[in-house]
Amino acid sequence: MAERLSAEARRQALGGLSGWTDVQGRDAIGKTFVFKDFNEAFGFMTRAALVAEKMDHHPEWRNVYKTVEVVLSTHDAGGVTARDMALAKAMNAIAG
Amino acid sequence: MAERLSAEARRQALGGLSGWTDVQGRDAIGKTFVFKDFNEAFGFMTRAALVAEKMDHHPEWRNVYKTVEVVLSTHDAGGVTARDMALAKAMNAIAG
Repeated sequence: MAERLSAEARRQALGGLSGWTDVQGRDAIGKTFVFKDFNEAFGFMTRAALVAEKMDHHPEWRNVYKTVEVVLSTHDAGGVTARDMALAKAMNAIAG
Repeated sequence: MAERLSAEARRQALGGLSGWTDVQGRDAIGKTFVFKDFNEAFGFMTRAALVAEKMDHHPEWRNVYKTVEVVLSTHDAGGVTARDMALAKAMNAIAG
Protein backbone atom coordinates (compact mmCIF):
# COMPACT_ATOMS: atom_id res chain seq x y z
CA MET A 1 0.00 0.00 0.00
CA ALA A 2 1.20 3.48 -0.83
CA GLU A 3 2.20 5.60 2.15
CA ARG A 4 1.45 9.27 2.67
CA LEU A 5 4.23 11.50 1.46
CA SER A 6 6.19 13.52 3.97
CA ALA A 7 5.68 17.27 3.82
CA GLU A 8 9.08 17.65 2.18
CA ALA A 9 8.55 14.90 -0.41
CA ARG A 10 5.18 16.39 -1.25
CA ARG A 11 6.56 19.88 -1.65
CA GLN A 12 9.27 18.60 -3.94
CA ALA A 13 6.85 16.58 -6.05
CA LEU A 14 4.41 19.49 -6.38
CA GLY A 15 7.29 21.70 -7.46
CA GLY A 16 7.61 19.60 -10.58
CA LEU A 17 3.90 19.44 -11.35
CA SER A 18 2.73 22.55 -13.15
CA GLY A 19 -0.57 23.88 -11.84
CA TRP A 20 -1.09 21.40 -9.00
CA THR A 21 -1.53 22.77 -5.50
CA ASP A 22 -2.60 21.60 -2.05
CA VAL A 23 -6.37 21.56 -1.60
CA GLN A 24 -7.57 23.78 1.24
CA GLY A 25 -8.99 21.88 4.17
CA ARG A 26 -8.19 18.42 2.85
CA ASP A 27 -5.18 16.17 2.54
CA ALA A 28 -5.32 16.24 -1.25
CA ILE A 29 -3.89 17.96 -4.31
CA GLY A 30 -5.90 19.65 -7.02
CA LYS A 31 -5.78 21.38 -10.36
CA THR A 32 -8.32 23.06 -12.62
CA PHE A 33 -7.74 22.34 -16.28
CA VAL A 34 -9.29 24.72 -18.82
CA PHE A 35 -9.67 23.63 -22.42
CA LYS A 36 -11.03 25.15 -25.62
CA ASP A 37 -14.43 23.51 -25.46
CA PHE A 38 -16.33 20.46 -24.21
CA ASN A 39 -14.88 18.24 -26.90
CA GLU A 40 -11.34 18.90 -25.66
CA ALA A 41 -12.31 18.74 -21.99
CA PHE A 42 -14.06 15.41 -22.30
CA GLY A 43 -11.34 14.09 -24.59
CA PHE A 44 -8.90 14.82 -21.78
CA MET A 45 -11.16 13.08 -19.27
CA THR A 46 -11.47 10.02 -21.46
CA ARG A 47 -7.73 9.64 -21.86
CA ALA A 48 -7.19 10.27 -18.14
CA ALA A 49 -9.91 7.74 -17.27
CA LEU A 50 -8.08 5.02 -19.19
CA VAL A 51 -4.86 5.81 -17.34
CA ALA A 52 -6.65 5.95 -13.98
CA GLU A 53 -8.36 2.62 -14.56
CA LYS A 54 -5.08 1.00 -15.53
CA MET A 55 -3.42 2.43 -12.39
CA ASP A 56 -6.47 1.40 -10.35
CA HIS A 57 -6.31 4.88 -8.87
CA HIS A 58 -9.17 7.21 -9.63
CA PRO A 59 -9.66 10.96 -9.49
CA GLU A 60 -12.45 13.01 -7.99
CA TRP A 61 -13.33 15.38 -10.78
CA ARG A 62 -15.95 17.88 -11.86
CA ASN A 63 -16.59 18.99 -15.41
CA VAL A 64 -18.49 22.08 -16.50
CA TYR A 65 -18.26 22.57 -20.26
CA LYS A 66 -14.59 23.34 -20.93
CA THR A 67 -13.25 23.12 -17.38
CA VAL A 68 -12.23 20.03 -15.43
CA GLU A 69 -11.51 20.40 -11.71
CA VAL A 70 -9.50 17.47 -10.41
CA VAL A 71 -8.80 16.46 -6.81
CA LEU A 72 -6.43 13.60 -6.04
CA SER A 73 -5.97 11.78 -2.75
CA THR A 74 -5.34 8.19 -1.74
CA HIS A 75 -8.25 7.10 0.43
CA ASP A 76 -6.56 3.95 1.74
CA ALA A 77 -3.64 6.02 2.94
CA GLY A 78 -5.72 8.94 4.21
CA GLY A 79 -3.76 11.46 2.21
CA VAL A 80 -1.49 12.23 -0.71
CA THR A 81 0.85 9.49 -1.91
CA ALA A 82 3.18 8.84 -4.81
CA ARG A 83 0.21 7.37 -6.69
CA ASP A 84 -1.47 10.79 -6.70
CA MET A 85 1.69 12.41 -8.00
CA ALA A 86 1.92 9.78 -10.75
CA LEU A 87 -1.66 10.37 -11.85
CA ALA A 88 -1.18 14.16 -11.69
CA LYS A 89 1.90 13.85 -13.90
CA ALA A 90 0.01 11.67 -16.39
CA MET A 91 -2.85 14.17 -16.50
CA ASN A 92 -0.45 17.04 -17.21
CA ALA A 93 1.09 15.01 -20.03
CA ILE A 94 -2.34 14.30 -21.53
CA ALA A 95 -3.42 17.93 -21.29
CA GLY A 96 -0.21 18.83 -23.12
CA MET B 1 -33.81 29.86 -27.43
CA ALA B 2 -35.37 27.52 -24.88
CA GLU B 3 -37.54 29.20 -22.27
CA ARG B 4 -37.68 28.40 -18.57
CA LEU B 5 -40.37 25.93 -17.75
CA SER B 6 -43.30 27.04 -15.65
CA ALA B 7 -43.50 25.55 -12.17
CA GLU B 8 -46.31 23.29 -13.30
CA ALA B 9 -44.56 22.11 -16.47
CA ARG B 10 -41.44 21.43 -14.48
CA ARG B 11 -43.31 19.44 -11.84
CA GLN B 12 -44.96 17.35 -14.51
CA ALA B 13 -41.70 16.70 -16.33
CA LEU B 14 -39.87 15.73 -13.13
CA GLY B 15 -42.71 13.36 -12.29
CA GLY B 16 -41.75 11.30 -15.32
CA LEU B 17 -37.99 11.37 -14.66
CA SER B 18 -36.98 8.77 -12.11
CA GLY B 19 -34.50 10.07 -9.55
CA TRP B 20 -34.33 13.68 -10.74
CA THR B 21 -35.17 16.40 -8.25
CA ASP B 22 -34.90 20.16 -7.87
CA VAL B 23 -31.47 21.30 -6.71
CA GLN B 24 -31.57 23.23 -3.43
CA GLY B 25 -30.69 26.90 -3.80
CA ARG B 26 -30.40 26.88 -7.58
CA ASP B 27 -32.71 26.89 -10.55
CA ALA B 28 -31.55 23.46 -11.68
CA ILE B 29 -32.35 19.77 -11.52
CA GLY B 30 -30.03 17.05 -10.32
CA LYS B 31 -29.54 13.35 -9.89
CA THR B 32 -26.83 11.14 -8.39
CA PHE B 33 -26.21 8.00 -10.40
CA VAL B 34 -24.50 5.09 -8.65
CA PHE B 35 -22.94 2.34 -10.71
CA LYS B 36 -21.06 -0.89 -10.01
CA ASP B 37 -17.59 0.53 -10.48
CA PHE B 38 -15.56 3.19 -12.29
CA ASN B 39 -15.77 1.33 -15.59
CA GLU B 40 -19.56 1.53 -15.55
CA ALA B 41 -19.64 5.10 -14.25
CA PHE B 42 -17.28 6.43 -16.88
CA GLY B 43 -18.94 4.36 -19.56
CA PHE B 44 -22.17 6.17 -18.68
CA MET B 45 -20.40 9.52 -18.79
CA THR B 46 -18.92 8.78 -22.19
CA ARG B 47 -22.26 7.88 -23.71
CA ALA B 48 -23.91 10.88 -22.06
CA ALA B 49 -21.12 13.16 -23.31
CA LEU B 50 -21.79 12.13 -26.90
CA VAL B 51 -25.49 12.88 -26.47
CA ALA B 52 -24.76 16.20 -24.76
CA GLU B 53 -22.36 17.29 -27.49
CA LYS B 54 -24.88 16.40 -30.16
CA MET B 55 -27.58 18.36 -28.32
CA ASP B 56 -25.10 21.20 -27.74
CA HIS B 57 -26.31 21.16 -24.16
CA HIS B 58 -23.85 20.11 -21.49
CA PRO B 59 -24.14 18.88 -17.93
CA GLU B 60 -22.32 19.97 -14.81
CA TRP B 61 -21.15 16.71 -13.33
CA ARG B 62 -18.85 15.27 -10.71
CA ASN B 63 -17.49 11.76 -10.68
CA VAL B 64 -15.98 9.94 -7.72
CA TYR B 65 -15.23 6.30 -8.57
CA LYS B 66 -18.66 4.71 -9.12
CA THR B 67 -20.86 7.75 -8.53
CA VAL B 68 -21.79 10.51 -10.96
CA GLU B 69 -23.59 13.59 -9.61
CA VAL B 70 -25.28 15.52 -12.39
CA VAL B 71 -26.75 19.03 -12.34
CA LEU B 72 -28.66 20.38 -15.32
CA SER B 73 -29.66 23.96 -16.01
CA THR B 74 -29.85 26.13 -19.10
CA HIS B 75 -27.53 29.08 -18.58
CA ASP B 76 -28.89 31.13 -21.47
CA ALA B 77 -32.37 30.87 -20.01
CA GLY B 78 -31.31 31.29 -16.38
CA GLY B 79 -33.05 28.13 -15.28
CA VAL B 80 -34.55 24.78 -16.19
CA THR B 81 -35.88 24.30 -19.71
CA ALA B 82 -37.13 21.49 -21.90
CA ARG B 83 -33.53 20.94 -23.00
CA ASP B 84 -32.59 19.92 -19.46
CA MET B 85 -35.51 17.53 -19.30
CA ALA B 86 -34.47 16.02 -22.65
CA LEU B 87 -30.90 15.47 -21.47
CA ALA B 88 -32.12 14.07 -18.14
CA LYS B 89 -34.33 11.62 -20.00
CA ALA B 90 -31.46 10.56 -22.25
CA MET B 91 -29.21 10.02 -19.22
CA ASN B 92 -31.81 7.83 -17.54
CA ALA B 93 -32.09 5.77 -20.71
CA ILE B 94 -28.31 5.35 -20.89
CA ALA B 95 -28.06 4.37 -17.22
CA GLY B 96 -30.75 1.81 -17.86
